[in-house]
Amino acid sequence: MCRWMAWFGQPVLIEELVFKTQHGIVDQSLHAKMGAETTNGDGFGLGWYGGGEGPGVYRSVAPAWSDENLREIAAHVESPLFFTHIRAAIGSPVQQTNCHPFRHGRWLFVHNGYLGEYQEVRRDLMLQIDPNRFPYVHGSTDTEVIFHLALTFGLEEDPIGALEQTVGFIEETGRRKGLSGLVQGTFGTSDGEKLWAVRYASEGPARTLFASADVDSIHELYPQNERLARLGVDDRLIVSEPVADLPGLWQEIPEGSAVTVRRGGVMDHRPFVPRQPDRAVRQPAMAPAVDA
Amino acid sequence: MCRWMAWFGQPVLIEELVFKTQHGIVDQSLHAKMGAETTNGDGFGLGWYGGGEGPGVYRSVAPAWSDENLREIAAHVESPLFFTHIRAAIGSPVQQTNCHPFRHGRWLFVHNGYLGEYQEVRRDLMLQIDPNRFPYVHGSTDTEVIFHLALTFGLEEDPIGALEQTVGFIEETGRRKGLSGLVQGTFGTSDGEKLWAVRYASEGPARTLFASADVDSIHELYPQNERLARLGVDDRLIVSEPVADLPGLWQEIPEGSAVTVRRGGVMDHRPFVPRQPDRAVRQPAMAPAVDA
Amino acid sequence: MCRWMAWFGQPVLIEELVFKTQHGIVDQSLHAKMGAETTNGDGFGLGWYGGGEGPGVYRSVAPAWSDENLREIAAHVESPLFFTHIRAAIGSPVQQTNCHPFRHGRWLFVHNGYLGEYQEVRRDLMLQIDPNRFPYVHGSTDTEVIFHLALTFGLEEDPIGALEQTVGFIEETGRRKGLSGLVQGTFGTSDGEKLWAVRYASEGPARTLFASADVDSIHELYPQNERLARLGVDDRLIVSEPVADLPGLWQEIPEGSAVTVRRGGVMDHRPFVPRQPDRAVRQPAMAPAVDA
Amino acid sequence: MCRWMAWFGQPVLIEELVFKTQHGIVDQSLHAKMGAETTNGDGFGLGWYGGGEGPGVYRSVAPAWSDENLREIAAHVESPLFFTHIRAAIGSPVQQTNCHPFRHGRWLFVHNGYLGEYQEVRRDLMLQIDPNRFPYVHGSTDTEVIFHLALTFGLEEDPIGALEQTVGFIEETGRRKGLSGLVQGTFGTSDGEKLWAVRYASEGPARTLFASADVDSIHELYPQNERLARLGVDDRLIVSEPVADLPGLWQEIPEGSAVTVRRGGVMDHRPFVPRQPDRAVRQPAMAPAVDA
Repeated sequence: MCRWMAWFGQPVLIEELVFKTQHGIVDQSLHAKMGAETTNGDGFGLGWYGGGEGPGVYRSVAPAWSDENLREIAAHVESPLFFTHIRAAIGSPVQQTNCHPFRHGRWLFVHNGYLGEYQEVRRDLMLQIDPNRFPYVHGSTDTEVIFHLALTFGLEEDPIGALEQTVGFIEETGRRKGLSGLVQGTFGTSDGEKLWAVRYASEGPARTLFASADVDSIHELYPQNERLARLGVDDRLIVSEPVADLPGLWQEIPEGSAVTVRRGGVMDHRPFVPRQPDRAVRQPAMAPAVDA
Repeated sequence: MCRWMAWFGQPVLIEELVFKTQHGIVDQSLHAKMGAETTNGDGFGLGWYGGGEGPGVYRSVAPAWSDENLREIAAHVESPLFFTHIRAAIGSPVQQTNCHPFRHGRWLFVHNGYLGEYQEVRRDLMLQIDPNRFPYVHGSTDTEVIFHLALTFGLEEDPIGALEQTVGFIEETGRRKGLSGLVQGTFGTSDGEKLWAVRYASEGPARTLFASADVDSIHELYPQNERLARLGVDDRLIVSEPVADLPGLWQEIPEGSAVTVRRGGVMDHRPFVPRQPDRAVRQPAMAPAVDA
Repeated sequence: MCRWMAWFGQPVLIEELVFKTQHGIVDQSLHAKMGAETTNGDGFGLGWYGGGEGPGVYRSVAPAWSDENLREIAAHVESPLFFTHIRAAIGSPVQQTNCHPFRHGRWLFVHNGYLGEYQEVRRDLMLQIDPNRFPYVHGSTDTEVIFHLALTFGLEEDPIGALEQTVGFIEETGRRKGLSGLVQGTFGTSDGEKLWAVRYASEGPARTLFASADVDSIHELYPQNERLARLGVDDRLIVSEPVADLPGLWQEIPEGSAVTVRRGGVMDHRPFVPRQPDRAVRQPAMAPAVDA
Repeated sequence: MCRWMAWFGQPVLIEELVFKTQHGIVDQSLHAKMGAETTNGDGFGLGWYGGGEGPGVYRSVAPAWSDENLREIAAHVESPLFFTHIRAAIGSPVQQTNCHPFRHGRWLFVHNGYLGEYQEVRRDLMLQIDPNRFPYVHGSTDTEVIFHLALTFGLEEDPIGALEQTVGFIEETGRRKGLSGLVQGTFGTSDGEKLWAVRYASEGPARTLFASADVDSIHELYPQNERLARLGVDDRLIVSEPVADLPGLWQEIPEGSAVTVRRGGVMDHRPFVPRQPDRAVRQPAMAPAVDA
């Protein structure tokens, strides 16, 4: 179990959403309500677009609730587009290289969920990563492998399409080994220009995912709320779990679907349909002994 | 031994001076040339003015050379005025609360050097801290106590005067106990509007301290240097140890003196003369037994 | 809120009680049942008697549940007498010097609870610490100050008596300032020969504290339980919160009382009655200005 | 660059060799004399045989010189056979899973040196790891891959033979890609019963490696030295760099050779000759597209 949130809209001090919001993600690190685990204390990460070249990433193995540096950065850095992620490790070590978001060039990637039977398929999945990308796998999470597979399958050209191929390939890899129910979770990714989010599970209910409602409806519902009054028409939040318990504020993103958020707060929905990869797929092979 | 540097001038990405400069402070963390110790690997800190309310502070117990987050922040945060500090612990624990810069409101404070016989005088010095400031002492370094003494003696109204009283009080405390040579080091402080730096030792040579020369002389000396060409008339660097080995680039700040750097790169020199505090000084006292 | 446990008996691998016991203290770090907070993820500590000179102490700022090194030490170190402590910080920083147990010579000290209005009395309490002990205060918790006060008041000669004076002194300090309800918690201490535990609150219900029942009653109650069968007549556990939910296994230590556990599992009860210190108490004093 | 040392002999408190020896490994972490780098501050590890099941491992990303917990463990744990390792990272992240020693069952493994052009061959080497071992690769160092290759090639039956095959396989992998000079370093491994050490470089001088001389010669050379007087006939040290600068104390292990230390201090020398693996070697393969 993990939790993530993404902001895309007017530039804000990161703390506005991370610390100063009711049931924000740092509060969720101690007391998640919708997760399989209530504690997400195995590290966190923040990835933001703003100054400098490409997105900045701050990741730490400390729990989000006690990290002084997170408070400092959040209180002094403004961004129009950022992700935060809190981690509840399932098996893999608590280390910075296992914290989300993962980054490649201008791209950030987060995940809430898991790959089932991961150790059974890890090697096959890693084999499929573009060999030129292999040196950039630094940690040991399923998510990092998913990210590099998605990059291999064209994330930079067609993010949702690449994730559909990635999930399709993972499910097919499982099927070949007689395994099912491999993919569980929600994914978020961005290149700094758009934001994409996916909700999907191979089997059973998928992890929750919500988008903030249109700002007009929000202002109509809560005309007196000062904080919400500051929300503009350009602003969208995507969250694993609502960060403020106000009815009408959140719309659930349906299972098996994806959204694209464009500048200006425009959000498009589409189905998310895993499929076979378009490109050649490497087959794990066992060659005869070199010295046979 | 420690090392610090301060930048005051045009807004720059912090990495420009911290990572991308010849023999910058991160390089000094591994290979200081002028210090008593060549390795400054016991944590570091960065304090910057920019977005948000007051200065931000990022401190870590990792060595500066291996901290990925420092690279990220430095590469994505711009600031017109910042301090960085690398620490070589002398006795006190390696923990975030012992890393510089220390902060109070809009003020930042760094120190390179030490208080001699610190454990002999620590209690007396702490007693002298304004009782209202006591809750803000979180760590166990001599520097944090010096900072709170200076605040007690009026740092916010007259930084150099307050430091003169602080040093005078520390030396007097030592004398009462038959100790001498207590204060060694350089100090840097700022409120975001001006920058002050002090070089002083009670006995023997003081730690080194340098200011960058006037930009005109620099441009005359190195007309072809692209990086130096970007230095403007408003820019000043104060450093424990020169960050680029170019003759004429650095002017030594004399021992027993202080400088004030104002916006626009103007730098004033004055002598630094420790003296008795202006205010009442608390005397440590032993009362009779309560139940006697 | 915190949680602690102490083992005194036959030498056991520490993991037996810390990891391999139902609802052991590492489980409590994620899911405490009786505390004000369910998560105790702000560091932990282990102090054990065994090889080498005096007790060893392993403290870390990582949550106990994810610290690989704790698993290693617990799985490879045997001890007849040890404390473990998990921390939920209330205000003071998450740093090693704030983790329990605290140590002085052969003595270890742990605490679950807090000093109310601590910042109001911190300076007065620190002033009362034996000046020779002052250099050994490295962190910023109330507990460390309580420990050094108790040492000042004679912990090494009469642990319970010294804690009674410590609590009495703290309450008196509060009263002088118009504050009440200052002391809340349970304390554990040992010199490697005996183990002492205290349960007390100045006001309202005290934090919970339990001792394991006599081994004979335990064996009668659970004749089939293999793990409990290994408990010998010499073995005692003192815990903030029961580590196995078996009725009859635990006896509550009454509020306002203390226990002494001697080798052989013998446990004596006595009331815990805060009182004025026997020794001279330093009065905070404000002397006239030195330069008046 | 890294440094390691191994002790095999009478049980000693680990601190005797790690902290209380002239120019011990913790001192080498700050001031190595023979290495390419003088600072080895990117984490460390301790692996020891003693209590519990198999070896215990303590690894940390803090520099060895400032880690309080290392001091504690070293001062309170006795062992007849242990490794310590200090790390100077070359490219791969500073994280616990990248610290030595690596462990599998009863086996420990350390390495000083590097694989040249590692990113060029990393994928090919990982492919060759026994697929059943794949889930146990947690970090991103060359050493961990070498260890799992050696296990794949039979380390548990014939450690030196397996390392000869591992090195042979790595060199062959390089040759196929037109790369040379891939393997540089010294290796140490143990199962708790014996200790093996290798010194080898594909090209140029190999990293240094020394064994302590026969205890009789040592006692003859230094009859007055109290510390050396405690060395018994059963005791052997293997070190990257001499830990005490006494002539005659150390014998250099020749390049291209291996030693086996058996209980009783007996040390056998043999040549180390890389060769083709005995077993089938998997060939990286590119199959046609699944959906072609």
